[in-house]
Amino acid sequence: MAVNLPLPIAANLKPVAGIELGYAEAGVRKANRKDLLVMKLAPTATVAGVFTTNRFCAAPVQVCKAHLEAARMSGAPIRALVINTGNANAGTGEAGLANANATCLALSELLGCDAAQILPFSTGVILEPLPVDRIKAGMPQAIANLKTDNWYNAAESIMTTDTQPKAASRSVTINGKTITLTGISKGAGMIKPNMATMLGYLAMDAKVAQPVLDHLVKEAADKSFNCITIDGDTSTNDSFMLIATGAAGLEVNEIDTPEYKALAEAVIGLSQELAQMIVRDGEGATKFMTITVEEGANVEECRKIAYSIGHSPLVKTAFYASDPNLGRILAAIGYAGIDDLDVSKLNLYLDDVWVAKNGGRNPDYQETDGQRVMKQSEITIRVKLARGTAAATVWTCDLSHDYVSINADYRS
Amino acid sequence: MAVNLPLPIAANLKPVAGIELGYAEAGVRKANRKDLLVMKLAPTATVAGVFTTNRFCAAPVQVCKAHLEAARMSGAPIRALVINTGNANAGTGEAGLANANATCLALSELLGCDAAQILPFSTGVILEPLPVDRIKAGMPQAIANLKTDNWYNAAESIMTTDTQPKAASRSVTINGKTITLTGISKGAGMIKPNMATMLGYLAMDAKVAQPVLDHLVKEAADKSFNCITIDGDTSTNDSFMLIATGAAGLEVNEIDTPEYKALAEAVIGLSQELAQMIVRDGEGATKFMTITVEEGANVEECRKIAYSIGHSPLVKTAFYASDPNLGRILAAIGYAGIDDLDVSKLNLYLDDVWVAKNGGRNPDYQETDGQRVMKQSEITIRVKLARGTAAATVWTCDLSHDYVSINADYRS
Repeated sequence: MAVNLPLPIAANLKPVAGIELGYAEAGVRKANRKDLLVMKLAPTATVAGVFTTNRFCAAPVQVCKAHLEAARMSGAPIRALVINTGNANAGTGEAGLANANATCLALSELLGCDAAQILPFSTGVILEPLPVDRIKAGMPQAIANLKTDNWYNAAESIMTTDTQPKAASRSVTINGKTITLTGISKGAGMIKPNMATMLGYLAMDAKVAQPVLDHLVKEAADKSFNCITIDGDTSTNDSFMLIATGAAGLEVNEIDTPEYKALAEAVIGLSQELAQMIVRDGEGATKFMTITVEEGANVEECRKIAYSIGHSPLVKTAFYASDPNLGRILAAIGYAGIDDLDVSKLNLYLDDVWVAKNGGRNPDYQETDGQRVMKQSEITIRVKLARGTAAATVWTCDLSHDYVSINADYRS
Repeated sequence: MAVNLPLPIAANLKPVAGIELGYAEAGVRKANRKDLLVMKLAPTATVAGVFTTNRFCAAPVQVCKAHLEAARMSGAPIRALVINTGNANAGTGEAGLANANATCLALSELLGCDAAQILPFSTGVILEPLPVDRIKAGMPQAIANLKTDNWYNAAESIMTTDTQPKAASRSVTINGKTITLTGISKGAGMIKPNMATMLGYLAMDAKVAQPVLDHLVKEAADKSFNCITIDGDTSTNDSFMLIATGAAGLEVNEIDTPEYKALAEAVIGLSQELAQMIVRDGEGATKFMTITVEEGANVEECRKIAYSIGHSPLVKTAFYASDPNLGRILAAIGYAGIDDLDVSKLNLYLDDVWVAKNGGRNPDYQETDGQRVMKQSEITIRVKLARGTAAATVWTCDLSHDYVSINADYRS
């Protein structure tokens, strides 16, 4: 049961001119489920991505990077993305690379372009060969139902252990031109590397120069998908792709312009929404926690402390139990690895409740106040370091019995 | 229910000449439980320790460090250790320091020495004032039952959420002289910072020069207590103390001598035994896992990878479920932060089963073989990096429903 996450409404997911989506039931691992998605792009589109830093980076991720680089060199644009669930094509060596390339080749022949103009993505079981024949066999079905208003189906097609599809839209008017942005996401970055890589795709109809899009995708990932954690694990296949179809009138060719800033704000906002949906649907999640660390000497140390709190199984189980066992948060701050942290200046708040003052219990803190906040389904933990002006935010969920059940039982 | 951890037998815990142990039921937090321990040392004793690196380092840890330093300066030896459970005296600011000092002063008056010759330790709830009057009131009872053969009671006196006392003895003959070593440990380094700091005390009757003991305590901790993890959290109060009473004939005044090596081997062996007991009694543990990373370029990277596997909730839940979901181990290796790791050379074994070969699934690997090993209560995960000759080992346990129950329910 996801935390405060209503189902998306298909009619509210706005088509983005220049991108069509088609899905198939290819039977990659199980029959009768949408498990193959093709996103076909206008030739005017630019594409940029950020990928997992896991050294066991999956074959499709390696091929994606190579094809993005090739597109930059040749000027031949990326024409389609193809995503399968049910198999991650990770830990599969040379054969895995060959299968990812075969997937691209098959789709390129159907779409009339080069294999290097296709980006492949896979999510599912690690260490097993990709059933590339079934994926190829499903492609004609996916191509046959390519439509611009297929976003809800697209969101369903990339689900693995997600309990519901994740998608959102927004629009922004810049220089009198309305830009539409729609995105989908799935799985939790590391809730489950075998069946739930984190994937995010955000398309917009602005025309964005490649170097600008490269900059924007990093900025957006850094402020959204890189700020979430379920259990601290990092998948072999995590990817976030930003697509600018170029179908609308607005052109953004430089950063540090008003157009860039307005567009970036919309992209970052939508990316945060898609990223937070993943946390809200985190395995076994019953609470959504925002961890904000302020007054740091730099962003890096704020983020380290926020992640240290967000990864602590002790903190996460206390939140599950609605138990204001707040010494656990202080302990997690203390072992975050900030060697010169002066804890005697530190303040800690739970929503509006001032819990720890100058490193110790706030004399005015009442356990009943902590208890009141802990019972909520949305909680903000705020830490003030009194070291500077930097800040960072991380979103996470609690650790429940269901997390253990889901992860212990899923393959059995 | 601890994993393959028989109760210690009191008669097998050998007295160490030069150290007497006395306990009391001081009612620090709960009535009718042993919660205060005094260890009285011969004036010939040397003492060395390693402490938590948590920045929220508890008041008693700060006082311990200061008193150890003072003893070095003044030559006035440490005469006693005093340990209370029920309250960690952490996150307590100046008042906490005053309470730790008051504890030392009270015991020093009873024993006829300076307050600076006492080392205080506390474990229990964070953020609450230490009930120092109850501790003082319990001291005469503890002193009245000081005995050299009180190790089993001592082990019970420092328990918090431990399901059983942890203690062991061994002896070693060096240069014809028999040295006796006995130790106790408790709690799991970070199973539960509120009620279960990791504490370890190891006493031996050899005479060891202070610089040699300082060296030895670090070496022993590095190969034992620093190699265990339950959930990756680090407490505010973790401490490991090595005591050499000087009552036996053997003197060790230098490292790199045969005497040092023989003594170190015994100390390290016993430290490992005491550390592993903590993991075997880890909260909710059903399996004991040894993670060995070999053929690394250096020990640091081997340890990073071993900890990355040992901290992964996904790996730990898979072991709980006896599910050979081994892609999770590869993913944890991949995100350990070794930037130049060539996964195509990596091999992975579960006990005698060769699971991953050159970074991919071993063609000869059968799931039934993995399943057979996963069903055991003791499992070795072995990773070979093919990068060098360094190695490191980490001991950990699985992550079960009971871990969540214990940590979610304990304060409620």
